[in-house]
Amino acid sequence: MNEFELIKVLTGGLPVNSSVVKGPGDDCAVLDLGLADQFVLFKTDAVVQSVHFDGTALPRLIGRKALGRCLSDIAAAGGNPVSAVITLALPAGFDAAQVMGIYEGIKEMAGEYTVSVVGGETTTNPGGILISVSMIGTINKRRYPGRGGAKVGDAIFISGTLGGSRSGKHLDFVPRVREGKWLVENFEIHAMMDISDGLAGDLPHILEASRVGADLNGDSIPISKEAKLAAREIEGGKPPLLAALTDGEDFELLFTVAARDAVPVLDGWKAAFPDVPITCIGRVSEKPGLRLKDQNGVKTLNPHGYVHFK
Amino acid sequence: MNEFELIKVLTGGLPVNSSVVKGPGDDCAVLDLGLADQFVLFKTDAVVQSVHFDGTALPRLIGRKALGRCLSDIAAAGGNPVSAVITLALPAGFDAAQVMGIYEGIKEMAGEYTVSVVGGETTTNPGGILISVSMIGTINKRRYPGRGGAKVGDAIFISGTLGGSRSGKHLDFVPRVREGKWLVENFEIHAMMDISDGLAGDLPHILEASRVGADLNGDSIPISKEAKLAAREIEGGKPPLLAALTDGEDFELLFTVAARDAVPVLDGWKAAFPDVPITCIGRVSEKPGLRLKDQNGVKTLNPHGYVHFK
Repeated sequence: MNEFELIKVLTGGLPVNSSVVKGPGDDCAVLDLGLADQFVLFKTDAVVQSVHFDGTALPRLIGRKALGRCLSDIAAAGGNPVSAVITLALPAGFDAAQVMGIYEGIKEMAGEYTVSVVGGETTTNPGGILISVSMIGTINKRRYPGRGGAKVGDAIFISGTLGGSRSGKHLDFVPRVREGKWLVENFEIHAMMDISDGLAGDLPHILEASRVGADLNGDSIPISKEAKLAAREIEGGKPPLLAALTDGEDFELLFTVAARDAVPVLDGWKAAFPDVPITCIGRVSEKPGLRLKDQNGVKTLNPHGYVHFK
Repeated sequence: MNEFELIKVLTGGLPVNSSVVKGPGDDCAVLDLGLADQFVLFKTDAVVQSVHFDGTALPRLIGRKALGRCLSDIAAAGGNPVSAVITLALPAGFDAAQVMGIYEGIKEMAGEYTVSVVGGETTTNPGGILISVSMIGTINKRRYPGRGGAKVGDAIFISGTLGGSRSGKHLDFVPRVREGKWLVENFEIHAMMDISDGLAGDLPHILEASRVGADLNGDSIPISKEAKLAAREIEGGKPPLLAALTDGEDFELLFTVAARDAVPVLDGWKAAFPDVPITCIGRVSEKPGLRLKDQNGVKTLNPHGYVHFK
């Protein structure tokens, strides 16, 4: 049984109550606690030593990543991050200086996004450091984008550039909180998520939730300079386009808007966030599945790469 | 540096924002998200294999304990638990049946307390199973008890019986959610917490926050039958009273009310919760510190036991 099969079993039949607007499945859970015009967003995520960071990682960046992953999920909901609690699980004989560095990173990033850190449990974890962060945020009830509203003909956008995060960005990314809020406040965003498992792995979540397909323009995919560099320098490395499609931990915003909003989104974004790339990478189609068109023809994409269309 | 010293360093200078009513220190953080008459409670807690449970524990009970610890903290705030998210960190080669059992326990207890489980991340943890639960709840703004309001002359109450939880109760306790809500809805509770580190270890948190002391009546401390049994059967085991004062993981409610409310609390509780013991164990005093009086005289209590008063 792999992780995804397990999650499916575990999240079957989870208890709900009248507060639940959206349970597991989107980037955040969405709750109605009775606020007049706001939903509450609720998210948990963990980073684990030897899995999400290694011994060479700067402690400060480990802390930033731990908080940043939740911030990216709140961003994907167009939300306003409010408050976080931290469980810090430490092995016996932990390095106090490293732990302090991690917390400095957490505090630093929380300060940058005006998130309060209101609880910090520590516990023992024999196998290594594990940092579990839970965060709550708010989102205007009429502006929550979700994943299920992509419509045939929508323009598909991605922020930033993709691929090669392992060379450093995975520890030092910028959660797109301001951008996510700006999008939902200024446009009717049909569907939005943050990508952490690669564009080819994550876009299908929107497509399946919306019961649509997509055609991507291979020449438009914004490839990071790190992915291009890795392809040149690493013997047998991924081709840059493949890296951009399948490398994980990009933490960029993927969203769709009606075609008529495409140019206003592009123009508005460039004015509001001149330092953050934004790219229209394709269109939502009626035909299910995810396809990539380039000068060599049409390929069908799967989470691990592409196969030429037969 | 021990755990408590570390927490003190880590939680120094944590970022706050305008939503924070109470940050780290109480059983739950207290947030004002703009609800007319409710605060939002926010809590995280984790259980770790080989620390909070061992290989002999029934998986279902591990799950119940993981959720129950947070429920007990919401109870201590007099709150209404609403929603939880779970991070389940698993070693390679985990036992799927054990994990399913853990989740069955989580679902079962969530159902009993009408808590929605709205997110379930799984991740890898090389050292063993770790379950981190975060929970949000609500509490009427005028009824949040906190820990800092105990007044000289207050009656001190404890629910249930104390000590010996290691023989089974630590995995199978009943979070006092109904009792906590009932208390804050019917009485002016001056201070309340749940005890997880033993009465002698936890009562000082209320006393220090309230800048008072306490005198306990040694003959009134409700000792569990498990603590009495352990004292009889285990060679060199703790005397029952010491076990009741210092064993951890009781998960009972400790609270103070004005002396005039003591009899109404006792009578009302016995009518509302006839199966749950309630005991007045002493009085809040002006003199700082925690003392225990019995037929042998006065002892001063510390978190690890007592020393005779000199």
